[in-house]
Amino acid sequence: MKGTILTIGDEILIGQIVDTNSVSIARHLNAAGIVVCEKCSIGDDRRQIVQSLERTLQQSNVVIITGGLGPTKDDITKKTLAEWFGCGMRYDETVAAHVERMLASRGIAFNDLNRGQALVPECCTVLFNAHGTAPGMWFERDSKVIVSLPGVPFEMEHLMQDEVMPRLKARFDLKQIVHRTLITAGLAESMLAEAIASWEEALPPYLKLAYLPNPGAVRLRLSAYEVDGKQVAREIEERFEQLRQLIPQYVVGYETATVQEQVHRMLTERRATLAAAESCTGGTIASRFTALAGASAYFLCGVVSYSNEAKQHVLGVDAASIEHYGAVSEPVARQMAEGVRRISGADYAVATTGIAGPMGGSPEKPVGTVWFAVATPTRTVAVCKQCGTDRGQVIDRASAFAIGLLRDAIAEEK
Amino acid sequence: MKGTILTIGDEILIGQIVDTNSVSIARHLNAAGIVVCEKCSIGDDRRQIVQSLERTLQQSNVVIITGGLGPTKDDITKKTLAEWFGCGMRYDETVAAHVERMLASRGIAFNDLNRGQALVPECCTVLFNAHGTAPGMWFERDSKVIVSLPGVPFEMEHLMQDEVMPRLKARFDLKQIVHRTLITAGLAESMLAEAIASWEEALPPYLKLAYLPNPGAVRLRLSAYEVDGKQVAREIEERFEQLRQLIPQYVVGYETATVQEQVHRMLTERRATLAAAESCTGGTIASRFTALAGASAYFLCGVVSYSNEAKQHVLGVDAASIEHYGAVSEPVARQMAEGVRRISGADYAVATTGIAGPMGGSPEKPVGTVWFAVATPTRTVAVCKQCGTDRGQVIDRASAFAIGLLRDAIAEEK
Repeated sequence: MKGTILTIGDEILIGQIVDTNSVSIARHLNAAGIVVCEKCSIGDDRRQIVQSLERTLQQSNVVIITGGLGPTKDDITKKTLAEWFGCGMRYDETVAAHVERMLASRGIAFNDLNRGQALVPECCTVLFNAHGTAPGMWFERDSKVIVSLPGVPFEMEHLMQDEVMPRLKARFDLKQIVHRTLITAGLAESMLAEAIASWEEALPPYLKLAYLPNPGAVRLRLSAYEVDGKQVAREIEERFEQLRQLIPQYVVGYETATVQEQVHRMLTERRATLAAAESCTGGTIASRFTALAGASAYFLCGVVSYSNEAKQHVLGVDAASIEHYGAVSEPVARQMAEGVRRISGADYAVATTGIAGPMGGSPEKPVGTVWFAVATPTRTVAVCKQCGTDRGQVIDRASAFAIGLLRDAIAEEK
Repeated sequence: MKGTILTIGDEILIGQIVDTNSVSIARHLNAAGIVVCEKCSIGDDRRQIVQSLERTLQQSNVVIITGGLGPTKDDITKKTLAEWFGCGMRYDETVAAHVERMLASRGIAFNDLNRGQALVPECCTVLFNAHGTAPGMWFERDSKVIVSLPGVPFEMEHLMQDEVMPRLKARFDLKQIVHRTLITAGLAESMLAEAIASWEEALPPYLKLAYLPNPGAVRLRLSAYEVDGKQVAREIEERFEQLRQLIPQYVVGYETATVQEQVHRMLTERRATLAAAESCTGGTIASRFTALAGASAYFLCGVVSYSNEAKQHVLGVDAASIEHYGAVSEPVARQMAEGVRRISGADYAVATTGIAGPMGGSPEKPVGTVWFAVATPTRTVAVCKQCGTDRGQVIDRASAFAIGLLRDAIAEEK
């Protein structure tokens, strides 16, 4: 079973947006055992849509299309599909009522353009878009499936999960795809490859190995396509165990989810609570946790103490420490973590204070210098780390590092 | 002049990474007047690489390929290209010396795999990769250009900028592409389209209009391909000026301007300060401001008061109000804004309290219900708004709406 993802929109071709839709669709298809053989992005152009659809249908059983379903004239996907299928359009009363209700709740009048969103090709099955005004569409031709979804990421995501995947699973007899990733750190890619050459050579041909270098880590992914999932997952586990014995000091762990998801699970399981005091990360750590459903069970309070006064008055950081050591210092990081832990009553607290740039650096504390602290029921740890030179990079790396430090501190706590 | 971007790597097709390389390459090509007609991602597969290359060469003068140049066995792009061009490989001493020097600086031995990185197809021009070990390669055939670049974003970016773009500009006589974006806020896409219908109809045919809806904003992009850039840029400016006169209250700015950037400018100019008290937006408002360079001049403090205790003890919200009206209510939103304004000493404060979901909704206050408040030196305003049904959507929309409310309140303040 093969699939192609076709994303439509001039904004993709001119680099105005990052296409994350195809990433999410690729994950869904892979998880269900559908091998994605190509991802292709094209413009809002009738001829190109038809050509790409015809070409990709030759190589795949399923083509998932996103984009071009808005109410305005530049969006032509729906019309183009109806023409290609040679069918007329019908007015879907259910879609119309839904769009009207959605707009009414936001105080927006239902106009002709919105009415146009309820027009769908006669030959399609409507996929109900509970979260938006453009319906998804399911087509079949010559035992192949073509799905058209709106380009708004969360609408697309809900439709993939709730409508498309259940139908694909019911429609086709799907085999399984297995991907497992092991993370190594401390060996450059070429040295790692040398160190594990014999292990790599002994891999059975249906296990495909990929090296994915990252700054500071090389991930090793084993993939198997259209197999008996359970059996292959066991096989991969054994192979990874051999690898762990071969290079024990370099194996960091297995990539499953994000570190904040890992912390989220740990805190939820332990029924422990969290608070954050952020200076240079400016609310990013809090927002990464609060983006996760269920965060309110453990996330009590975050303080973005950007000014020294906020550090002192809200978190109780000692003015003399700021004066003597500077706001970006170990004592201040420690007092921030302990302060937010105290005022919130949380079990764990994480704090950051650093220089995000582009201004504010000095020879002793250049842009990118960040002090981190984690306060637990039994102790406070503090670390200093250089997190890059670009403001966005510093915020991103510092947030990730802080959450990693928090994870380690929680794991060590009995 | 047309171009295609071909990104190679199984990790893209399984959704393990987000392909940002093609975004950056698309921007470079567009800026130089090369129309990107397709972006295509395929696996590390010899047959697929050859087929896609041959196909995309038919539609474009330039094909930029990234990925598959690492030292390990899963990377096959270089070998495949050499085979396709029918040429042998040569050992490039300059590349070898550079790789050896780079590795030595990190204390890594130069092994056979690294030596392999200095092997390049005889028919290519090497593009020196100052930041990595895999060289870029420039090929020509039948007056078309094929460029192969490493997939590491940082290395690819430097090669595009320093090596590829200057050569493309020298090699081809390029026309220009103009993209200009105007940002509106406050009108839904369909209402905006209705309001500007006459303006849209009067656009000359070579100006292509696109609607790009975002939570809280709709961007309008005008694009013109292969034109006299200066003349068209002036034309677009005039068209946007007409639009500004048509809907003055809804125009936020141009290009990538966001509402937070507008508030950032307003506060910086007025030397006024800001604080935020966030419940359902969980730090997102703070992080949007603190992501901007110079935010420390006005952003004093943010409080993510997720728990009722944090609302009471940190912000001074009255326990009786929470009890009587609930945490998601007008009195609580007002007290949060006033509370964070008081403890931080800021001139302006914004507050959100709502139900992000998926749990916590009720018939009276369903998921997506958010109360907003803005406190200024002279008054506090509060508004309730329905912000959607999906957690990410609610957080995103509520953050955008809160920042818009803040902008309006600052603008009205003398």
